[in-house]
Amino acid sequence: MREVAIIGAGMTKFGRSEIGLIELMSEASIRALDDASLGDLRVDAVYVPNMGAARLNRQTAIASALVDRLNLFPAMAEAVENGPASGASAVKNGFQAIASGMADLVLVTGGERMRAVNNLEATDFVASLSHPQAEYIYGVTLPALAGMFTRLYMERYGVTARHLALVAVKNHANALDNPYAHIQQRITLEGILTAPEAVVNNPYIADPLRLYDCCPVSDGAASLVLASREIAEKLGRPVVRIAGIGQATDTHAVHERPDPTELTAVRLAAQKAFGMAGITPQDIDVAELHDAFTILEIAESEEAGFFRKGEGHVAVEEGVTSRTGTLPINPSGGLKAKGHPVGATGVAQLVELTWQLRGEAGERQVEGAKSAFACNFGGFGNNVVATVLRRED
Amino acid sequence: MREVAIIGAGMTKFGRSEIGLIELMSEASIRALDDASLGDLRVDAVYVPNMGAARLNRQTAIASALVDRLNLFPAMAEAVENGPASGASAVKNGFQAIASGMADLVLVTGGERMRAVNNLEATDFVASLSHPQAEYIYGVTLPALAGMFTRLYMERYGVTARHLALVAVKNHANALDNPYAHIQQRITLEGILTAPEAVVNNPYIADPLRLYDCCPVSDGAASLVLASREIAEKLGRPVVRIAGIGQATDTHAVHERPDPTELTAVRLAAQKAFGMAGITPQDIDVAELHDAFTILEIAESEEAGFFRKGEGHVAVEEGVTSRTGTLPINPSGGLKAKGHPVGATGVAQLVELTWQLRGEAGERQVEGAKSAFACNFGGFGNNVVATVLRRED
Repeated sequence: MREVAIIGAGMTKFGRSEIGLIELMSEASIRALDDASLGDLRVDAVYVPNMGAARLNRQTAIASALVDRLNLFPAMAEAVENGPASGASAVKNGFQAIASGMADLVLVTGGERMRAVNNLEATDFVASLSHPQAEYIYGVTLPALAGMFTRLYMERYGVTARHLALVAVKNHANALDNPYAHIQQRITLEGILTAPEAVVNNPYIADPLRLYDCCPVSDGAASLVLASREIAEKLGRPVVRIAGIGQATDTHAVHERPDPTELTAVRLAAQKAFGMAGITPQDIDVAELHDAFTILEIAESEEAGFFRKGEGHVAVEEGVTSRTGTLPINPSGGLKAKGHPVGATGVAQLVELTWQLRGEAGERQVEGAKSAFACNFGGFGNNVVATVLRRED
Repeated sequence: MREVAIIGAGMTKFGRSEIGLIELMSEASIRALDDASLGDLRVDAVYVPNMGAARLNRQTAIASALVDRLNLFPAMAEAVENGPASGASAVKNGFQAIASGMADLVLVTGGERMRAVNNLEATDFVASLSHPQAEYIYGVTLPALAGMFTRLYMERYGVTARHLALVAVKNHANALDNPYAHIQQRITLEGILTAPEAVVNNPYIADPLRLYDCCPVSDGAASLVLASREIAEKLGRPVVRIAGIGQATDTHAVHERPDPTELTAVRLAAQKAFGMAGITPQDIDVAELHDAFTILEIAESEEAGFFRKGEGHVAVEEGVTSRTGTLPINPSGGLKAKGHPVGATGVAQLVELTWQLRGEAGERQVEGAKSAFACNFGGFGNNVVATVLRRED
């Protein structure tokens, strides 16, 4: 298997966009391509993770549209959809294109323009990833699934509303140093939990989850340029190697799992990614986890092997996962504050980690980071992609 | 690069389905898996080519849904979208998963349930692959693009309505021997061209294209099991090797091409596929071309290198492309008569060719076929995937 490196990274500011999906993806792509400084080399293949263009933007075959916009003919191109894990799924396929020898240079650009529709329609759209007969038909949305999951987690492991809020406070603080973040608003425990106005400012979305436990609905795009290691070294780019990729599926309907608090697909995907990279969770310096809801950062940090089951919330409380802790999680602000344009998210996690491993993360830099981990969580944990990156030069 | 073989093939009957998309894909998958006879071996990865589930069926993350339905946990899984070329794009990605060493056994199941909506909505949906600002906004549909393309082709190369009708008559005749074909209706030149009732029975859709020049709107699914060559040989399956894959993109808007009658992406994709396979068009015994409109079978047969430019219609007239000719094209009935559930089409072409290379195509068998070619045509030729298969044992 040929080795694969990330040699370019770029993204748009997440938030509410006035420009179209292809334009957003084009902007992110140009930033990543500029960053890669390819000179005369041409991109062989383009992967476009996206979940909702056909429905939200009434456009299909968007990979061809992006190739056209960027004048990358005759590059191979297709869109990849794996719900909110579309981004890392596409990176996996770009990795395989190079690892197999079918391509040498690959552009992966994920994007979503979710705010083209109203929030009710966006919520219904995201719910279309749930089980049609066992979940969707009963009105179960993603916040609802996360709410029930959180309740079980609280009862089982002693997680409280305060622990959840600590995740939000941490990630909002990180996002203040991320110019690409959707939400740049300092919040405090008092402001979202105990102040009288918290009842209004932080209403319940799906009890026990409140507004500040949930990621926003965002527009945005993120892009990576992948290359064979030989090309990366020839170009003289810092080598951020894709050292491990793991992916695993689980039951579609959450209630079919023997223990719904166990995110088996996260555990299996992480084990596979670490196994392929030949390192352990203890070797990781920085991680981006899929905190679409605050509880997920806690649960994923356990299933990935960073903390024992039921102890993730303690790590948050002790500051282990803050930027100056021993395992900073979501220095970008995470989905919680950076935003969650679903097709872009998995790519954006790896954009952030590439910058971290290159020492280019500015105010939010995790000092001396050499190994990084990302968890991109699809469905309600029914399809998870874990990626391990390493700086090697 | 590890060698990859097709060891299982199956599909549903194309047409109007009473069952849902996941059920259709499940049926095709089970047939392909039964055919592969994996015993204790497990599928590592699942690829699901599909274009419209989010919009036509209000369901996303369908790859996870299919894994769940088939109990293939914890296989990796994602959907792949490349317009009407989604099928062959997904096969390419399954190929790369095995060729790279990331997987040993891959299921590729494409499906579409287009008749869940009415024909107007289906036509609008397919048109969403055209250029939003340069084509779609002016009301240009795929039949309209094909109509203008046909007119140019007629003026340039002397193609007549009779040549087009000959393609339809041939493919309808082939479909009569294909139990999976959507349309099983014998047609004659007289019946669709010269009889008085032809004006009513074969109305103009997009002048000069008439009803019998256009593929139907179909529901259906098709499935392949891919394996590393070692596993294929261990299982004792007939080895149909994926010998070459080529993919190329072209301008999104058709009018931006220097000569709109040239399908550059078909030519480049075919050249690449033949180059990888180490054979020439003259070595091909049977081909499945993407005849969404009759003119496309003629044009693709030229660009792929089977006939000189402007001579494809002569080959049809001379019977070269009929089942007993020297290069049978679309023995399955093609999109024209077998049907065109867009996400399934590219996979279904390779299902037919697998059967042909194994000598399992029944009444429509092309005798002694050892090498086969497929052209899966995305957009109006802006993203084309060509595949070369070879029987090797």
